[in-house]
Amino acid sequence: MQHLITTSDFTKDEIIELFDDAKMFRDLQSSDCLKGKLIVTLFFENSTRTRSSFEIAAKRLGAEVVSLDVGSSSRSKGETIFDTVANINAMKPDAIVIRHSECGLPESLKEHVNCPILNAGDGYNAHPTQALLDLFTILDHFNNNVEGKKVAIVGDVKTSRVASSDSKLLPRFGIEPIFVAPDHFKSEDESIRQVTLLSEVIDEVDVVMSLRTQLERHSQVYYTSMQEYAKDYCITKEIFKDRDLILLHPGPVNRNIDIDDEMLLDPRSKVLQQVSNGVAVRMAVLKKLIK
Amino acid sequence: MQHLITTSDFTKDEIIELFDDAKMFRDLQSSDCLKGKLIVTLFFENSTRTRSSFEIAAKRLGAEVVSLDVGSSSRSKGETIFDTVANINAMKPDAIVIRHSECGLPESLKEHVNCPILNAGDGYNAHPTQALLDLFTILDHFNNNVEGKKVAIVGDVKTSRVASSDSKLLPRFGIEPIFVAPDHFKSEDESIRQVTLLSEVIDEVDVVMSLRTQLERHSQVYYTSMQEYAKDYCITKEIFKDRDLILLHPGPVNRNIDIDDEMLLDPRSKVLQQVSNGVAVRMAVLKKLIK
Amino acid sequence: MQHLITTSDFTKDEIIELFDDAKMFRDLQSSDCLKGKLIVTLFFENSTRTRSSFEIAAKRLGAEVVSLDVGSSSRSKGETIFDTVANINAMKPDAIVIRHSECGLPESLKEHVNCPILNAGDGYNAHPTQALLDLFTILDHFNNNVEGKKVAIVGDVKTSRVASSDSKLLPRFGIEPIFVAPDHFKSEDESIRQVTLLSEVIDEVDVVMSLRTQLERHSQVYYTSMQEYAKDYCITKEIFKDRDLILLHPGPVNRNIDIDDEMLLDPRSKVLQQVSNGVAVRMAVLKKLIK
Repeated sequence: MQHLITTSDFTKDEIIELFDDAKMFRDLQSSDCLKGKLIVTLFFENSTRTRSSFEIAAKRLGAEVVSLDVGSSSRSKGETIFDTVANINAMKPDAIVIRHSECGLPESLKEHVNCPILNAGDGYNAHPTQALLDLFTILDHFNNNVEGKKVAIVGDVKTSRVASSDSKLLPRFGIEPIFVAPDHFKSEDESIRQVTLLSEVIDEVDVVMSLRTQLERHSQVYYTSMQEYAKDYCITKEIFKDRDLILLHPGPVNRNIDIDDEMLLDPRSKVLQQVSNGVAVRMAVLKKLIK
Repeated sequence: MQHLITTSDFTKDEIIELFDDAKMFRDLQSSDCLKGKLIVTLFFENSTRTRSSFEIAAKRLGAEVVSLDVGSSSRSKGETIFDTVANINAMKPDAIVIRHSECGLPESLKEHVNCPILNAGDGYNAHPTQALLDLFTILDHFNNNVEGKKVAIVGDVKTSRVASSDSKLLPRFGIEPIFVAPDHFKSEDESIRQVTLLSEVIDEVDVVMSLRTQLERHSQVYYTSMQEYAKDYCITKEIFKDRDLILLHPGPVNRNIDIDDEMLLDPRSKVLQQVSNGVAVRMAVLKKLIK
Repeated sequence: MQHLITTSDFTKDEIIELFDDAKMFRDLQSSDCLKGKLIVTLFFENSTRTRSSFEIAAKRLGAEVVSLDVGSSSRSKGETIFDTVANINAMKPDAIVIRHSECGLPESLKEHVNCPILNAGDGYNAHPTQALLDLFTILDHFNNNVEGKKVAIVGDVKTSRVASSDSKLLPRFGIEPIFVAPDHFKSEDESIRQVTLLSEVIDEVDVVMSLRTQLERHSQVYYTSMQEYAKDYCITKEIFKDRDLILLHPGPVNRNIDIDDEMLLDPRSKVLQQVSNGVAVRMAVLKKLIK
């Protein structure tokens, strides 16, 4: 049985095939290929966006979805997450989609289940479907000619599971990630080139991926306000100018902190296309793991 | 593309046709006409009743429903409602059903979406499906002979979106609404006849529509208790006597404040029929807007 | 119309037939026999486990499910539960599944509805689908040869709706329940044999059913900690030894209070099989009551 805990669970060929399906689903929107299947979503962290994307993907394929609000019930009864998952597994779902604040938790659940686990985000560790949809959006825009392209990933790369997953996946397709962050937000991953300001690399990159700023993730106070952070890191027309770039963001966007209003309306912003592609990519992932 | 923001979005002929469908659905209960379609409900105000009525209507037509608990997630992440809706829209639903406390919000969303918006209540402004089911219930009871009938709408007409929508829709079918309210709850709409006590018009009306009392909507304290309000405005057998009237209420009823226990059991009370008709009318609306 | 309020609503023959269906559903997992049907779940008490088991059962049969979070909406508007149920009933569901903290409430709802009521637990009174799945698990394990078998039901039998339902259902199939509890947790039901310690009956019983400890149900403080209770009542390998017994628990298990980690991993523990059987038994119940 195959799980999706990190993007390394799929070979490059598998990903290419997955994207063919995603393209088909993007056009088709609806299918019966998971009719009679049942998918359980277990979100221990709030997420309208990712949960509804998975739920819509599953329903577009004809599957049934049971969304468990795990924050408010079993856990308040003191049950461990392993027992919660073992119990859900005993109800024989065809897949379990899980988000949890603890790094590595989805990996550790694999031995407790008889169905595929889909990691919808575990702490700072990984968010594989987000990385897949980011890659899909980039490949789609550049018509698959991505060898040698560079992506500036801007913001708090230290605690971002999106930065973590993207920086592992993109190089497998010949794309170089460059982290752009103030020193206190820089990653400990020494294999990745890191700079402090976007202006240092803006002339060599093809894609700018802005991350969601979440100052509360740090125990130390680096900025007195989001606006102070934004002064250097908000993506604006001033920095983009007329360059031939595309702009990505995993959402939800802090307007005028991560990206300003003007750039969100700019046709180079692919933020909403990412959302659309997200449903299609998740449909393809569900089909692959369940069939 | 057609939306349903207020009842004026439908012509009289469209409404008549809609009600033919509603009658069919009331008998049939189940259909496949929206199979493969996906409807998102976005309730920013709590509502078991309206949300479940829409959800049941959608599922009875074979559609999939994704209910987003928008209070607890994206918004707590500081996203604007326009961004939330733009994102949901990017997931390509076939309709969005929305309830929000802000008047005019559903109208302002139209330019942000590629699918029909169904207003399930916006502040004091409008509640078009409630008005449609009220009209449907009246037409049904009087076998479509409603020209010249009069409806007393009793209670806090000033802040009631039900009173607002009904008083605009009913006259288009030859029915006269009369508002019955104490001075501080009277409407500013001068085109509608208003009286203070139901006894003033009880002999000329054919329908009494009681509204839900929500004293907390007013910053000023007009009554020391609901019971004090009820003394003059609770619908009782004493006021109805044996008159040939029907009694409506949008629900949920404050028992013995809006309507007393005895009148709720009276066969002239159509409160539960309204609920049944509500599902059928919403099925017809969904079919009309999505197909 | 038939309801399931307590297990006495079904004859012995009906239960045998029900279990044939449950066996079929356990193998088959999926069916279309309730396609076009709509089931409403109304849980006034939190329950991931029972609610999701019912929801999965319904969806496996092709039915639509509307789960109403009744804690947060209508009731906060002051509506009585009878009005909430009358309103749901007016939306014409094909069954209502209800859990409530008040003993006897599901019974009292019967006269307010036109569809089957399924009791998913009412206070200390009854939990009929749990008792049915417990019996199903026992019959299944002993290949239907259960005449004369004995089941030790261990823990707070005084306030347990599981103990209450099981102790009524098991004797109808020739199985004797024996309650094992400290004096302050003993039942007032004098028709059932009661002992204080499991060691008194461990050599004569065939099944041990541990109950979930919920000290907070008692206004009086009998134990300073769960651990103090566990000293005498936690099910361990030490007490089971190599006896030919099976171990049941309705879940969720308080690990090392109700049952210790070692015994949960022991092949004689059927706790997860109970969960699997629970879905199959609920599928059979839904099919029986709705068709």
